[in-house]
Amino acid sequence: MTARGVSSPLRARNFGPGPAYLPTEVLERLASDLLDYQGSGLGVAEISHRGPLFAPVREALEDRLRRLLALPARYAILWMHGGATPHFGLIPLNLGRRRGRADYVVSGHWSACAYEEARRLLPEARVAARASKPPVAVPPTASWSLDPEADYVYYTDNESVDGIEFPGAPRVARPLVADMTANFLSRPIEIGPHALVYAGAQKNLGLTGLGVVVVDRELLPEDLPGVPRTDVYAAHLAERSMLNTPNTVAWYTAALMLEWIEHAGGLEALAVRNRRKADRLYAVLDGSGGFYLNEVSPAYRSRMNVPFQLADPALLPVFLREAAAAGLHQLEGHRSRGGLRASLYNAQPEEAVADLARFLEEFRRRHG
Amino acid sequence: MTARGVSSPLRARNFGPGPAYLPTEVLERLASDLLDYQGSGLGVAEISHRGPLFAPVREALEDRLRRLLALPARYAILWMHGGATPHFGLIPLNLGRRRGRADYVVSGHWSACAYEEARRLLPEARVAARASKPPVAVPPTASWSLDPEADYVYYTDNESVDGIEFPGAPRVARPLVADMTANFLSRPIEIGPHALVYAGAQKNLGLTGLGVVVVDRELLPEDLPGVPRTDVYAAHLAERSMLNTPNTVAWYTAALMLEWIEHAGGLEALAVRNRRKADRLYAVLDGSGGFYLNEVSPAYRSRMNVPFQLADPALLPVFLREAAAAGLHQLEGHRSRGGLRASLYNAQPEEAVADLARFLEEFRRRHG
Repeated sequence: MTARGVSSPLRARNFGPGPAYLPTEVLERLASDLLDYQGSGLGVAEISHRGPLFAPVREALEDRLRRLLALPARYAILWMHGGATPHFGLIPLNLGRRRGRADYVVSGHWSACAYEEARRLLPEARVAARASKPPVAVPPTASWSLDPEADYVYYTDNESVDGIEFPGAPRVARPLVADMTANFLSRPIEIGPHALVYAGAQKNLGLTGLGVVVVDRELLPEDLPGVPRTDVYAAHLAERSMLNTPNTVAWYTAALMLEWIEHAGGLEALAVRNRRKADRLYAVLDGSGGFYLNEVSPAYRSRMNVPFQLADPALLPVFLREAAAAGLHQLEGHRSRGGLRASLYNAQPEEAVADLARFLEEFRRRHG
Repeated sequence: MTARGVSSPLRARNFGPGPAYLPTEVLERLASDLLDYQGSGLGVAEISHRGPLFAPVREALEDRLRRLLALPARYAILWMHGGATPHFGLIPLNLGRRRGRADYVVSGHWSACAYEEARRLLPEARVAARASKPPVAVPPTASWSLDPEADYVYYTDNESVDGIEFPGAPRVARPLVADMTANFLSRPIEIGPHALVYAGAQKNLGLTGLGVVVVDRELLPEDLPGVPRTDVYAAHLAERSMLNTPNTVAWYTAALMLEWIEHAGGLEALAVRNRRKADRLYAVLDGSGGFYLNEVSPAYRSRMNVPFQLADPALLPVFLREAAAAGLHQLEGHRSRGGLRASLYNAQPEEAVADLARFLEEFRRRHG
């Protein structure tokens, strides 16, 4: 993966939650291919999605993701427009029609949004469990209030706003549906218990506007009367994700990201690296004597998104100003929470995390 | 609009229908900004859609499009995921609920698709008129079978597969809904008679995956019970097109395309240039003594997409091979029709059309 015709400028440390930092070599390749794709004189954004130049991109998306996830044949992969949010509605429509019942685990911001949307569409969407008050944790599955008639049990594997991540797939005797937007491809997935896993692309798969759905094809109803065709998973499956013109630039970037993940050693290698990055940061927060605060119970702390507060909130603007001056960007917390947040997706270099850890310690020494 | 750090390679002549040719200077700017946006050290794909770096992009989209269309205040602009196709379903859901009735003018491939989708969603979607057999034309509005109770009359201003374009907005005493995907911003629009105008971005606004909706805000129902929020136009309006994370790279490219259109002199200047390009090509076809065939009545011929057949279909592979060797690409007709098609959107240079015209004449001399 080498760039042609593009010089690499100074790239800042970027801790944004998404749109997030992307590997420089991926961006260089995309930048170059926008003007001339494989010596064709046509840019990658200017070629037919059904033509011979683009066909290998589609194949790479399917083959590489299938290989990385070690996906059994019963699962189909759908690449769809719109990121993650449309699936808050599409999942109840497509998977909740048999009995109109579903259980939701509300562990933070995004699962609360998904539950709210499910209530618009299913007569019997219910909350099976909620995250506890600080120290924040998901209650053990044995205590969940599960509906034996539920079509599925929904959970958000990584809550990017709250910094809460499941240690692994919950053990329940129901088909699971998981929003893995913020930790997809950051570690191996136990896919077997899942009816459906989905993710927006903008964290570990590149650009905004694209979402990927991995779904047990046996569970998809063939049609949903009264529902737009673009909301019917089976229609996307039948057209191999080309029901309408795909987001070709995002598809191409996702294919480059999958290649990058393979070159990085695959999901096991990334899991080790991601754990090391997160441990480094949490160690600084926990060792700050209360100067920095993170309220999530260690077993449920996210490896991808580390939200934290300053014990003295008056220091927040000072922190952001000094961090930016040190070349550390996009550390603001989610608008619903305030405070700070560092996102550590696959592409986040260990050197960037080391820079941030050093800055956190120096800032505490100066202002603590 | 100057590029930094990117050398412009040889760019081929590209007549693709979309994903289509884009101005080299737009691609150079995008390529450069993917790595470093405004000297921030962050790429344009890596910054928060709600942050200060991206805010001017959002404003530029709104302000420039409003200015180019001379848009009255009662119209809102929505930027949405998925290009044009989702609106085949969203329009009946959002605008057809009052009476459940709508009239469709079926003038070609895309309006037939839109009508088929409307029939899934509205009890009383009907065909008001159909294009005639060759010479292909839309019947005069006086002959349309209009439902006096229809919520709207739907037409496709430019049929990109069939090469049929309306000379102007049809005169009917109903709110109009227009799919302008393939000719949006190629000439001034008479917006007043329209309830809604929409377009996929991939022709004159840049990348795939993005659609724009210009809609009379008074006509939008506040909510649609039982419908996913992402399908409710009013929800997108309330969130100023950030109901969920937008396709930031496509938004940025659309902003660059709007700037490019302004620099090109705006819609009046482009209308003159686009007419000249199309006239040049149709003159060659009509002067070929039947070697090349186009069956559309001159008054309804598209200025954007020029489909044509070879009288001897056996020559088709020869034509495509020789055209490619001459540096003329993506001239294949739509997979549903076969034959040939040249697309001449705003960015298509007059020199490229001149090259194609010369090739057409030479090919006829050699094979006629």
